[in-house]
Amino acid sequence: MIDLFVIKVGGNVIDNPKLLEEFLRNFAAIKGKKILIHGGGKIATRMGDKLGIESKYVNGRRITDAETIDVVTMVYGGLVNKQLVAKLQANGCNAIGMTGADANIIPAVKRPVKEIDYGFVGDINTEDVQGTSLKALLEANLVPVFAPLTHDGKGQMLNTNADTIASSLAIALSKFYNVRLIYCFEKKGVLHSPDDDNSVITLIDRMIYEELKADNVLTDGILPKLENAFAAIESGVAEVLIGHADDVQSNTTDTVAGTLIR
Amino acid sequence: MIDLFVIKVGGNVIDNPKLLEEFLRNFAAIKGKKILIHGGGKIATRMGDKLGIESKYVNGRRITDAETIDVVTMVYGGLVNKQLVAKLQANGCNAIGMTGADANIIPAVKRPVKEIDYGFVGDINTEDVQGTSLKALLEANLVPVFAPLTHDGKGQMLNTNADTIASSLAIALSKFYNVRLIYCFEKKGVLHSPDDDNSVITLIDRMIYEELKADNVLTDGILPKLENAFAAIESGVAEVLIGHADDVQSNTTDTVAGTLIR
Repeated sequence: MIDLFVIKVGGNVIDNPKLLEEFLRNFAAIKGKKILIHGGGKIATRMGDKLGIESKYVNGRRITDAETIDVVTMVYGGLVNKQLVAKLQANGCNAIGMTGADANIIPAVKRPVKEIDYGFVGDINTEDVQGTSLKALLEANLVPVFAPLTHDGKGQMLNTNADTIASSLAIALSKFYNVRLIYCFEKKGVLHSPDDDNSVITLIDRMIYEELKADNVLTDGILPKLENAFAAIESGVAEVLIGHADDVQSNTTDTVAGTLIR
Repeated sequence: MIDLFVIKVGGNVIDNPKLLEEFLRNFAAIKGKKILIHGGGKIATRMGDKLGIESKYVNGRRITDAETIDVVTMVYGGLVNKQLVAKLQANGCNAIGMTGADANIIPAVKRPVKEIDYGFVGDINTEDVQGTSLKALLEANLVPVFAPLTHDGKGQMLNTNADTIASSLAIALSKFYNVRLIYCFEKKGVLHSPDDDNSVITLIDRMIYEELKADNVLTDGILPKLENAFAAIESGVAEVLIGHADDVQSNTTDTVAGTLIR
């Protein structure tokens, strides 16, 4: 019996006011304990542009320099996070906006410099996540809403991938709850035919996964998502669901619209 | 016996890295339950300037238009708040950054338009403050750190005076705790001689206050602060203290450096 939903919503929804409004209404209506993790969207890049801060990339990977970490702290931790909280409150959902620094929930380590210096990017050791503190908020009937930010414990905020935060929180909380980790993306789920949105594969377990791989059904984009899903399950998460943001409510029930992985 | 400190620190400290670092170290070292409310400082104005958003004033009062509420939400609720939280965490203080929207702690009302339209400014009815939710965080040994922001419960963030947030929280929590409300400002306390920093009046009660007023000892700047202090005390706050940010630690003891009002 699932008793906690850890739900990640991406920047494409954050960037689209109509999708976002619909998503927040649906999220607010989900019964039971839940956590939201939001991506950043393009607004940080736009804000950086306006402030004359150049987006820097090395080998196609974004670099978070000192100016950029301030921009993402402002935009993700302030503007986006608080607007989501205010709108969830308007929908009757008792949201509390957070970053990984707040209540020290997600201590992280600044990514070591190897070939590339990613700057102020945080990597999470799942065993460092303070699940007990987060549980206290959930038990107080609060709905934590996380921005994709952590901290190094020495006073520095760090930029951190929202998918990684979602899986780390889900794993840490699986000590206390039966967790369904839900990734909202722009498709209905894992598809048998990439072009047919009605070809959702409803259930994937390890055996089905190996068969799908052998049959070359899975596209390149979906393979890492599924690998991450199985990694979360092997670390204690009960179920992972990949589905469309529009379907978030039905994806918290037994009759899912997306792909359930377990 | 005081068992909760509600401490407001102003923008002048936020704007000064050296003062701020010292203040946060002292704040972190305060024993027992505590809450921090921070002002914004000039950084929101600087950020607005960089973004080409003009600061608007009517009769010398700042107007919070739609662009400006986004800037202060970003800067106060994101950049300033999270930097304070990360630095407090580095000092071993389990801070949790908040606005009045988070956990719906401070529902507010957009200031009605009379002669002046102040824009997205929130006024607080103290009886609306969700003291019980805030108490739950304090009892979980968290240290709430509030940005000067509230919300209207309909999805809109609102700019709100940090002094007002501090007194509203102190009053709401005086149902559960014996509260000392501490205002940190740039002087050691209420002074007998405005130019002599060593002339701090250590204790003021209603009777002493009336005498000081009759003797014209009090300057114009300090009168409203004292009126607000007595208003808080009449609403249940045990003590109000006005003192220097540098003295915050001793001002939580019995041998205060500032002016204790009760």
